[in-house]
Amino acid sequence: MGYTVGVDLGGHFIKVGLVDEDGNVVLRSEAPTMADKGREASLGQLIGTVRDFLSKCREYGTPEGIGVGSPGLVDVEAGIVRFSPNFPGWREVPLRKVLREATGLPVAIGNDANVAALAENAFGAGKDLKTFVFATLGTGVGGALILDGRLFTGPLGAAGEIGHITVDPNGPRCNCGNYGCLERFVGIDHIVERAREKLRTWEGETLIPDMVDGDLDKLTPKHLSDAAQLGDRLALKVWEEIGTYLGIAFASITNLLNPEAFVLGGGVSNAGEVLFRPIRETIRKRAMAVPAGLVKVLRAQVGPDAGVIGASLLAR
Amino acid sequence: MGYTVGVDLGGHFIKVGLVDEDGNVVLRSEAPTMADKGREASLGQLIGTVRDFLSKCREYGTPEGIGVGSPGLVDVEAGIVRFSPNFPGWREVPLRKVLREATGLPVAIGNDANVAALAENAFGAGKDLKTFVFATLGTGVGGALILDGRLFTGPLGAAGEIGHITVDPNGPRCNCGNYGCLERFVGIDHIVERAREKLRTWEGETLIPDMVDGDLDKLTPKHLSDAAQLGDRLALKVWEEIGTYLGIAFASITNLLNPEAFVLGGGVSNAGEVLFRPIRETIRKRAMAVPAGLVKVLRAQVGPDAGVIGASLLAR
Repeated sequence: MGYTVGVDLGGHFIKVGLVDEDGNVVLRSEAPTMADKGREASLGQLIGTVRDFLSKCREYGTPEGIGVGSPGLVDVEAGIVRFSPNFPGWREVPLRKVLREATGLPVAIGNDANVAALAENAFGAGKDLKTFVFATLGTGVGGALILDGRLFTGPLGAAGEIGHITVDPNGPRCNCGNYGCLERFVGIDHIVERAREKLRTWEGETLIPDMVDGDLDKLTPKHLSDAAQLGDRLALKVWEEIGTYLGIAFASITNLLNPEAFVLGGGVSNAGEVLFRPIRETIRKRAMAVPAGLVKVLRAQVGPDAGVIGASLLAR
Repeated sequence: MGYTVGVDLGGHFIKVGLVDEDGNVVLRSEAPTMADKGREASLGQLIGTVRDFLSKCREYGTPEGIGVGSPGLVDVEAGIVRFSPNFPGWREVPLRKVLREATGLPVAIGNDANVAALAENAFGAGKDLKTFVFATLGTGVGGALILDGRLFTGPLGAAGEIGHITVDPNGPRCNCGNYGCLERFVGIDHIVERAREKLRTWEGETLIPDMVDGDLDKLTPKHLSDAAQLGDRLALKVWEEIGTYLGIAFASITNLLNPEAFVLGGGVSNAGEVLFRPIRETIRKRAMAVPAGLVKVLRAQVGPDAGVIGASLLAR
C-alpha cells in the first residue's frame, strides 16, 4: 500500500493529510495559512507545516510524493502558481520546486477546484462518470471539468470558471469586471442579500427574522436552507431563484459539453433538494432534449477532505 | 499516397470527394440529397451517389475508406445517425453498416460540424492549435470542440451546440424551446430581421433599400456586409450588435474552456472584420483577463470543401 501526501492550501488553513490508495486519510494536520502575512511568511508556513507533517508520518514509510491543491491560476506543467487572489504577493511562485527542495520528495501542484474534482472522480459522485462538471458553490463559484475521463484545464490552466458564465448580460457588475455572471447571483453574499431584499417587502409569514434574533446581518445560507426545510415560503422562493440562475448556466453548459452530470460541492450545496429541484427543472426546460435527458445534478460526496484527497492524487 | 473518400451530407446536396493525405480533393461529385423524399429515397440516393463516385475513382486505386459527415445527432461509436432534423424519417439510421455493405469499404461517420472542425484542425485555421472552438454561422449556429488536440463530442455525441447557449434568459423563444439562445439572435433570418426593424425607424442615410431594389424581402447578410464595407452606419450597427451577442456567448466559453481560438466558418462569417471586431471587443470586456488574453477570433480557412475533407479524415 503506497501513501501520498495531499496538501489543501486554503485561504485560512493549510490542511495536510497522508492518503492511501483508496482515498482514506490515515493521518492529518492543520495550520493557519498566514496568507495576510505576505509571500515569504505564507510560503515559510507552508514549508514548515509540510515538513512537520512528514516527520509525523515516519511509521508509514516514505510517502511516494506530495500533491498540493492551490487556489488561483496554477501552471501544472511548470509547477508554478501564477497568481492567487487570496494570497497577497503570490505571483509566479515556483511552488513545486520550493517544496521539492524543502522535502526531497516529488511534488505536483494543481488548482484547488480541479483537485476536488479529481477526488470526486476517483472516490465520490463522479466515480462512475467519464464526463462531468464539478462546481463548488460558496462565496465564489469555482469549477472544474472532467471530460472523457481526464481533467481538462485548458492551455493556461484557466478552464472551469463556471462562476463567470454570463447568465444575464444586463445584470449587475461582477468582481471580475463582467456583468451578470453566475457568481454575482449565486455567491453566498448575493444569496443572503436577495433574502434581505425580499424580507423588506415580504407580506406573508416567515421564520427568518426569528432565526437570526432579528439581526439580518447574521443571516447565512444555512438559515435559509433550515427555513426552507421547514416550508418557509420566502426561503423556498430564494432557493428557487438561485436554482434557476444555476440552471440557466448549467443548461448552456449541457448544450455545450453534453456532460453526464453536474457534481455540486461547497457550503451552498448543503441546501439540498430545495436548491437542486429548480436547477434540474431549469435544465430540463432550457437545454436540448438529448443532452438534458442524460445529465444528472448530484451532490459531491467526498466531503471536507476532498481538497486533501484530490491533492494526494496529483502525486500518484 | 493513400486516398480516402469524404461524403458531406447536406440538407440539399450530397458532396463526395476523393481526398489525399494533404487534404487535397483530387476528384469530386455532387448530387441532390432528396431529403424531402423520405428515408428510403434519400438513403438510396446516398448509396447510389457514393457507388457511382467509387466507380469513377478506379484510376486512383481502392480508397482506404469512406467518411461521412451528417447533420443531426450522430452516434460515432455505433455508426448510427440518431436523428437529423432536416432529413424526415431519419431516426436510428445505421448509416455505417448500410454504406459498408453497399461498398465493401470501411466506413466511419460523424456530425457535420465536428468533421468541419477536424478539417480546420488538420489543414486550416486550427492547424497549430490544440484547443479551439469551431462555430459555423449560418441559418443555424453549429459548433464543435477540439480540446487538447482531440475532438470532444460528449457521451452522446451532442456536445458543441454553441448556438444554444443562453445569451439573454428573458430573450425571444428559440426553435429549441429555450429563450434567448445565441442562434435566436445571430442566425441569418434574425440578422436580416434586425436590419429590417432598424430600417423602419432609421433617420440617417443608408444604402440598404437601394441594394435590394426597395424589396426588403430580398435582404441577405451579404447585402449587410457589402453595405458595412462601404461604411453604411445601419449595417455597421447591425454587425456590431450581432458581434456583441456572439461575444457574450464566446466570453462565457472563454471562461469555461480557456480556448486558444474561436474559428468561425459559415456564410455569416464572410462579413469579416465588421463582425469580428465587436466579437473580440466583447470577449476582451467580458471574459477574465488570463483566458481573454490568450484567445483569438479567426476565420475558418478550409472553405466550402471543409465538409468533404473533414469527413475523409474520419476514414484515416
